[in-house]
Amino acid sequence: MFYYKNNELYVEDMKVADIALEFKTPLYIYSKSHFETQYKKLDEKITRRHLICFALKANSNLAVINTFAKLGAGADVVSAGEIFRAKKAGLDTTKIVFSGVGKTPDEIKYALENNILMFNIESFEELEEIEKVACLLNKTAPVSFRVNPNVDPKTHPYISTGLKKNKFGISHTQIVDAYKKASQMKHISIKGIQFHIGSQLTDVSPFFEAQIKVAHIMRELLSLGIKLDIIDIGGGLGVVYENEKEPDLDQYANFINEAFKDFPDSMIVLEPGRFLVANGGIFVTKVLYRKQNEGKNFIIVDGAMNDLIRPSLYDAYHKIEPVVKKNAKKITADIVGPICESGDFFARSREIDSLERNDLVSIFSSGAYGFTMASNYNSRCKPAEVLVDKDKVKLVRARETFEDLIRGETI
Amino acid sequence: MFYYKNNELYVEDMKVADIALEFKTPLYIYSKSHFETQYKKLDEKITRRHLICFALKANSNLAVINTFAKLGAGADVVSAGEIFRAKKAGLDTTKIVFSGVGKTPDEIKYALENNILMFNIESFEELEEIEKVACLLNKTAPVSFRVNPNVDPKTHPYISTGLKKNKFGISHTQIVDAYKKASQMKHISIKGIQFHIGSQLTDVSPFFEAQIKVAHIMRELLSLGIKLDIIDIGGGLGVVYENEKEPDLDQYANFINEAFKDFPDSMIVLEPGRFLVANGGIFVTKVLYRKQNEGKNFIIVDGAMNDLIRPSLYDAYHKIEPVVKKNAKKITADIVGPICESGDFFARSREIDSLERNDLVSIFSSGAYGFTMASNYNSRCKPAEVLVDKDKVKLVRARETFEDLIRGETI
Ligand SMILES: Cc1ncc(COP(=O)(O)O)c(C=O)c1O
Ligand SMILES: Cc1ncc(COP(=O)(O)O)c(C=O)c1O
Repeated sequence: MFYYKNNELYVEDMKVADIALEFKTPLYIYSKSHFETQYKKLDEKITRRHLICFALKANSNLAVINTFAKLGAGADVVSAGEIFRAKKAGLDTTKIVFSGVGKTPDEIKYALENNILMFNIESFEELEEIEKVACLLNKTAPVSFRVNPNVDPKTHPYISTGLKKNKFGISHTQIVDAYKKASQMKHISIKGIQFHIGSQLTDVSPFFEAQIKVAHIMRELLSLGIKLDIIDIGGGLGVVYENEKEPDLDQYANFINEAFKDFPDSMIVLEPGRFLVANGGIFVTKVLYRKQNEGKNFIIVDGAMNDLIRPSLYDAYHKIEPVVKKNAKKITADIVGPICESGDFFARSREIDSLERNDLVSIFSSGAYGFTMASNYNSRCKPAEVLVDKDKVKLVRARETFEDLIRGETI
Repeated sequence: MFYYKNNELYVEDMKVADIALEFKTPLYIYSKSHFETQYKKLDEKITRRHLICFALKANSNLAVINTFAKLGAGADVVSAGEIFRAKKAGLDTTKIVFSGVGKTPDEIKYALENNILMFNIESFEELEEIEKVACLLNKTAPVSFRVNPNVDPKTHPYISTGLKKNKFGISHTQIVDAYKKASQMKHISIKGIQFHIGSQLTDVSPFFEAQIKVAHIMRELLSLGIKLDIIDIGGGLGVVYENEKEPDLDQYANFINEAFKDFPDSMIVLEPGRFLVANGGIFVTKVLYRKQNEGKNFIIVDGAMNDLIRPSLYDAYHKIEPVVKKNAKKITADIVGPICESGDFFARSREIDSLERNDLVSIFSSGAYGFTMASNYNSRCKPAEVLVDKDKVKLVRARETFEDLIRGETI
């Protein structure tokens, strides 16, 4: 949905330059059709009964959530704030799965009041807390356990979550005990099992490895009389940032069918985040200044690490191109923001068209883990977000103001 | 100002546990006396005429800024948002220096309207822009240039800023040209020179190395008839996080006197951030759950990387202790937050008192680059901040609410 025509960048039917002129920079621009296309692509491949729970942490803008909700999506949330967002976006809360290692009692209460689909429990102590809160509310809490399958997803260490050295899930040596314990609790209703091994996987075989382990656990549980309605296979499907190969969705779907063929009645829950949104967003920023320090080129833009932290935090690669290509000669430059840290960069030693002041550049693949990780570091106002739907552009989050920065503060 | 009495942590005259009970967790707690003490300590050591411009990026809470403003401090800012904050905090805007590689035209305008002390210019193109905006406003812009002295501060690469591979400043080979150019501009008034080589320096000799280089440039400028009123020596003074040695302030002051003895009439500007505030703040968080994954202990607390990102981003060390010590046996554990990333940790493989659910822990040295870098990742509300002044505790920033999360958004 992002393409060049006559050297100008378009999003759907609109020129990016026009949008940037109207809404100013730095700016997140999303393509609604891209989101819909990705959702349908995945939805169609999975032949078993399933529910796609969009991982809101990737992009929790209300308009984005609403786009998926209208297609029938559920949500994978990790906080009460995300449940609140899902509700505000018109998503059916009975399609929410609640993940995360640190659910507070208040969050558990809020989730129970909103009748979510299930809690993905990550520790024995959490199980006890959920039983306690459910008892107080005189409710039954639907739960699954997150198993840590100890599978190497071969991705960035910060987004590898299925190794035993990670904080996530319950190890396979303890998982059966967890179910046994839960089965004796009055306010707990066992629904399923969950795992999530990491993010940005382009090779889908580690998923299969984990699925096989999970199916094995399910068979063991079945022998104990514990039958699971839901198999939640987590998120983690990768996207193309640079020249990765796209994950093979056919293979992914086949693996699911193969791994869980003994459990034909269970519903598959998926928790994709990045796959649905990463390439549906760009971050547009404007060249402020250029400089050279002893032969090294720097292009200073008006966006910064507070707006998009992935390059700093994960050393992540994002493709960067001018919004209007002028067939300029190529230079090698660092593309950096105004923040007073050397860590504030979007690219280092990158070959890019030579740019002039006020030129716009697009930082691609910024739809996932972009705005959701934004901060106000250096007292910078968070950027605006717009959603494009064919020839319509809608401001879905206003740019912050100075007043927003100090809200709640007193001398 | 943070100390244990009968195994309970105090801040000034107050028990941290009581404050946490009242204001909930996660919570930033600051000590006003610590801030004042640090300021005065530095202020007294510098024997030459000087102005301490607190680097707001370290902690821009209005009450904190106000504390320094009352002692006569100026501010080192890097955005219009920080100028706005300084004003709101009652700081005299004529004591503001404006640093940063990416000042936008709007920010330059805002700074000129507020009659700041000077712009620290970081590129030739920025000089041109400032001339242009000043001309439009029919004003004269007071400026200094930031020189990149190419000195290795021997600190974390992300906070090393004085190497020639960094985006900061103008290289010493170009700096004289910059002054020559500025001296011919109608709306530019040359005020001074600035440098800042990095942050968290505990050995002050790299400062001296840079100062010597700067004095050399000043002599060269003088021979061209360019006299500078202000010598801005930046920030960067380190603090003790673990077992670093404190920077030697006497030596620091002597170095300044020695390096700039040929320029007795110039005013010294200092831009300390971390030194003034780091150890004046703690981040208090509560134990939610404990778990073991195959022999590895995890303590899951209600604070997370969105609240305090330094451990994730810089692999920074923060001392962590229980708020109430129970003489429990020691264990080795990862102390982690609820966010769904392995990067969400405060400490890894740390020896710590064995903790129970609902125990409070203090993450020390969180007064600098703590709250200012906070985000809403995982739709978590930013924590509250309180300022303690002897036996008085004041909420200086309210905890965010769900409504704050979605402000400005529409479906
Ligand atoms: C439990 C869980 N589910 C889903 C996701 C989404 O992952 P992705 O965006 O890679 O699909 C994450 C990401 O951290 C997660 O932790
Ligand atoms: C120009 C400038 N001045 C001052 C500071 C404050 O540094 P510190 O907190 O180490 O004193 C910084 C930090 O990045 C800076 O970039």
